[in-house]
Amino acid sequence: MNAGGRNEKLLIVGSVAFDSVETPTGKVEMAMGGSATFASIAASYWCRPLPVGVVGEDFGEPQLRRFTDQGITTEGIERVEGRTFHWRGRYHEDFKGRDTLETALNVFESFDPVIPEAFRDSRYVLLGNIDPGLQMKVLDQLSAAELVAMDTMNLWIDIARDALLELLPRVDILIINDEEAIQLSGSSSVLGAAQKILEMGPRYLVIKRGEYGALLFGPDLCLFVPAVLLETVVDPTGAGDCFAGGFVGRLASAGKLDRNTFGSALVDGTVIASYSVEAFSVDGICGLTDDRIAGRRSSLERMIRL
Amino acid sequence: MNAGGRNEKLLIVGSVAFDSVETPTGKVEMAMGGSATFASIAASYWCRPLPVGVVGEDFGEPQLRRFTDQGITTEGIERVEGRTFHWRGRYHEDFKGRDTLETALNVFESFDPVIPEAFRDSRYVLLGNIDPGLQMKVLDQLSAAELVAMDTMNLWIDIARDALLELLPRVDILIINDEEAIQLSGSSSVLGAAQKILEMGPRYLVIKRGEYGALLFGPDLCLFVPAVLLETVVDPTGAGDCFAGGFVGRLASAGKLDRNTFGSALVDGTVIASYSVEAFSVDGICGLTDDRIAGRRSSLERMIRL
Repeated sequence: MNAGGRNEKLLIVGSVAFDSVETPTGKVEMAMGGSATFASIAASYWCRPLPVGVVGEDFGEPQLRRFTDQGITTEGIERVEGRTFHWRGRYHEDFKGRDTLETALNVFESFDPVIPEAFRDSRYVLLGNIDPGLQMKVLDQLSAAELVAMDTMNLWIDIARDALLELLPRVDILIINDEEAIQLSGSSSVLGAAQKILEMGPRYLVIKRGEYGALLFGPDLCLFVPAVLLETVVDPTGAGDCFAGGFVGRLASAGKLDRNTFGSALVDGTVIASYSVEAFSVDGICGLTDDRIAGRRSSLERMIRL
Repeated sequence: MNAGGRNEKLLIVGSVAFDSVETPTGKVEMAMGGSATFASIAASYWCRPLPVGVVGEDFGEPQLRRFTDQGITTEGIERVEGRTFHWRGRYHEDFKGRDTLETALNVFESFDPVIPEAFRDSRYVLLGNIDPGLQMKVLDQLSAAELVAMDTMNLWIDIARDALLELLPRVDILIINDEEAIQLSGSSSVLGAAQKILEMGPRYLVIKRGEYGALLFGPDLCLFVPAVLLETVVDPTGAGDCFAGGFVGRLASAGKLDRNTFGSALVDGTVIASYSVEAFSVDGICGLTDDRIAGRRSSLERMIRL
């Protein structure tokens, strides 16, 4: 891999959605969300994200502008007849759990990602949490993928396990949370889960632990970065996607996969995720300056410099 | 403070008990436990712990030998008529919670610690989790205390809050877990809790987060060390006391309170706590070699060297 820099393309396939969210500190109706949305905006601070997703007729100019204001092309966001994917949820008092009150897949139900011609030579790819069969179809359309990162969820581990296991050997970095790691591996400890999952094919594994931080496992490699300590949490929705976007975005711009780069990428993913939870929707991650990101990165690094 | 080295005395006041514990991986009956027991054995790898506690007639030579085998004097462990404090508990399937099935305070109910003459000039003190009124009485018996670390629990925050608040300004380092920090401060975030608690008097605050690690807060200081990742957890009982013993034991041997020393002490506390949970009772922390401790310390430090 060559150093890509800020101009390196990162293909991001996932959901583009409206979220209606209620948390102990407030609520929001029909705000922009979805894994491709969060991850692309997060990644835009490090590289050139190319989101691919589908929206309905209710997704218009104001929404698209959130992307273009971040310098993100919306060429890969297909607009079709119908309504945009809508998720409604409510977080528990301590923010540790949440209930889904409504999931209207709408146009996302028949999402069958066609990668625009100009995106197909992307060397960096982030497959957001969609049906593993579709994730595989995305990979089959690419001509130059060098680093494939991927997210998944309990639903697919449950109902599409075979497709997932077929996909994993084609994945360089699997990015999941600790519950998913335990479910996928059948192991009861995070360490045992990591060892088993690495045997399933991915070269590296990132385990997200929410407010407690993130772990990276690879050959002879185990790294940890704690989450940023925040005084106020507003909305955790999309934090994991922001982490993935920032993490892979940083890898894309670095163009290499050594220990130091992974460390910096974990820190950057953690920092952008921390901004995300301080506001509803994408409000916390839009329009950040490099200085603000660098400031939070420094204090996070200082916390673990012993 | 002068560098104390391995010979520096560390007074440790707390419970000496029998624990009967059932976990998802096994069980043990009437095994040695108690905060002073765990903390003293843990600290013995760094300094000269002086445990002070009370036991009954059922606590005999085999139990005392667990201390003396670690080079720990049992002069401060008073043996009185009656039975030793006994706790019986059962851990939940995921080890994240536990139920107390029985608490027989026995001789511990009338524990009124009298510090042996030879211990009163200890410069380092660890007050295990006992009634804050008794913790205060311990401090009043000491002539040369330079560093006082202290643990407490939800019970005292609840029923002896005034005594606790009176004590905190005399404490250099308060060591509690995140739930206790939130209860004591009334703040909902760990960061907010830390800020409020530091205003209550202690110079430093350590917040233990179990399997997720530990945080240290002080003036212009915020440090974090993750827990050691373990393949097998056998029994978490006493892990927090071991952490405190290792942490303060390292501070005692270093004889200073700078950022580097705190970092090393957090790592050492974390390492000794990790050995503790790999076995029942004190079995995991007795008879360790310096090499084994150093090995685990290195891998923990590597995990966060980015």
